[in-house]
Amino acid sequence: MNEKMNLLLFSTSAIYGSGYLGYCGEEVKSFFAEGKEVIFIPYARPGGISHDEYTAIAAARFAELGIAVRGIHEFEHPARALEAAGGVFAGGGNTFVLLRQLYRFHLVEALRKYVGEGLPYMGSSAGSNIAGLSIGTSNDMPIVYPPAFEALELIPLNINPHYIDAPADSKHMGETRETRIREFHHFNPQPVLGLREGSWLLLSGGRLELGGPLKARLFRRGEEATEILPGEALNEYLP
Amino acid sequence: MNEKMNLLLFSTSAIYGSGYLGYCGEEVKSFFAEGKEVIFIPYARPGGISHDEYTAIAAARFAELGIAVRGIHEFEHPARALEAAGGVFAGGGNTFVLLRQLYRFHLVEALRKYVGEGLPYMGSSAGSNIAGLSIGTSNDMPIVYPPAFEALELIPLNINPHYIDAPADSKHMGETRETRIREFHHFNPQPVLGLREGSWLLLSGGRLELGGPLKARLFRRGEEATEILPGEALNEYLP
Repeated sequence: MNEKMNLLLFSTSAIYGSGYLGYCGEEVKSFFAEGKEVIFIPYARPGGISHDEYTAIAAARFAELGIAVRGIHEFEHPARALEAAGGVFAGGGNTFVLLRQLYRFHLVEALRKYVGEGLPYMGSSAGSNIAGLSIGTSNDMPIVYPPAFEALELIPLNINPHYIDAPADSKHMGETRETRIREFHHFNPQPVLGLREGSWLLLSGGRLELGGPLKARLFRRGEEATEILPGEALNEYLP
Repeated sequence: MNEKMNLLLFSTSAIYGSGYLGYCGEEVKSFFAEGKEVIFIPYARPGGISHDEYTAIAAARFAELGIAVRGIHEFEHPARALEAAGGVFAGGGNTFVLLRQLYRFHLVEALRKYVGEGLPYMGSSAGSNIAGLSIGTSNDMPIVYPPAFEALELIPLNINPHYIDAPADSKHMGETRETRIREFHHFNPQPVLGLREGSWLLLSGGRLELGGPLKARLFRRGEEATEILPGEALNEYLP
């Protein structure tokens, strides 16, 4: 694991009853250096809102935390926005839409370079999903076709955000989340971390740690699933 | 709508408490001509079972209905299997895996040709999804990368199988099915039919009709969703 890299990857931007990033203000505030502008990536925008509107939602919450935010879509050359940034935050929405835009604007390479050199990267939901090896464990509807499923590859695993345990009393015949991840492992070797809502991953100094009050469920090909404890490092479980 | 085409598209292969195709035997039996072999497409196979094992499950149920079944994977040239077939049935599983295999074996073109000329096509779940314009309204995890999201394009709409209404009391922050389909319409123009478990579509003589005891939810870009009634034709709603 890259010791220079700083990642903060939330399963979700809001838990039930909380406002936008309402449950994790302290973590966000302490993750970014004071006084430096954070670049927001609104490309995964959910529903019909514009990039400006989505950026305004993020900027309003960051303002409460004393952090200035600017949308990457405001730059003529989006990849250059990262050069002078104090950090970057990729918001949630649709993972396929997000990844397609990142490829289109050559941001996959740019993010790998700058984040690999230490630029703090925060994601929520789709923005966290793309920090892994591929988007192959996304829960989203494939509403656009990206040029690849390979993602930023910042960490040697896949994330499944909004991980949810199978309800005991369901009569719906769709696959459970665990079944879907098992099926992923028929075709892909990498570990998958099911990150429940309210959980996050923090990478700092080469230690990849589970944050939040809940356990996370780690799936490795050919092995029983393991519950990772809050505060536990994942390093020893990963290739 | 092609008047020669015969389609029977189930939302799911089993409803809660039923066995494999247990709730729709009469429909299956009357759809296929007597005495002719049906070719089963097991490529979407769920979980760890083999193509042979999946085919055996389908064949056992079809045997009860008096229909002989053979797996398309048994043929050296799968596309040729369709030439002499009495019908074809694409089983459920993972839509991405299924579509990738169909492209790999040149079955997308072959199915368009033979089904367009009248070969009865039955699908369930993933097998129904691919009968539409694209797999962009699949619920499945994108565990493999197909060469395109365009599907068989047998009908001028997309199907969302296993359609489920949002539970009123959910505290999970993932998108509802309706929200996902609305987001699909930001990027894609075609109507989407949310087909609830226990429902199916039957195309015969150019009439595309909703079967089963439930309504289905039709989403058209820029319009309010419409509930289609059991037995109602969809033709007038489609472009």
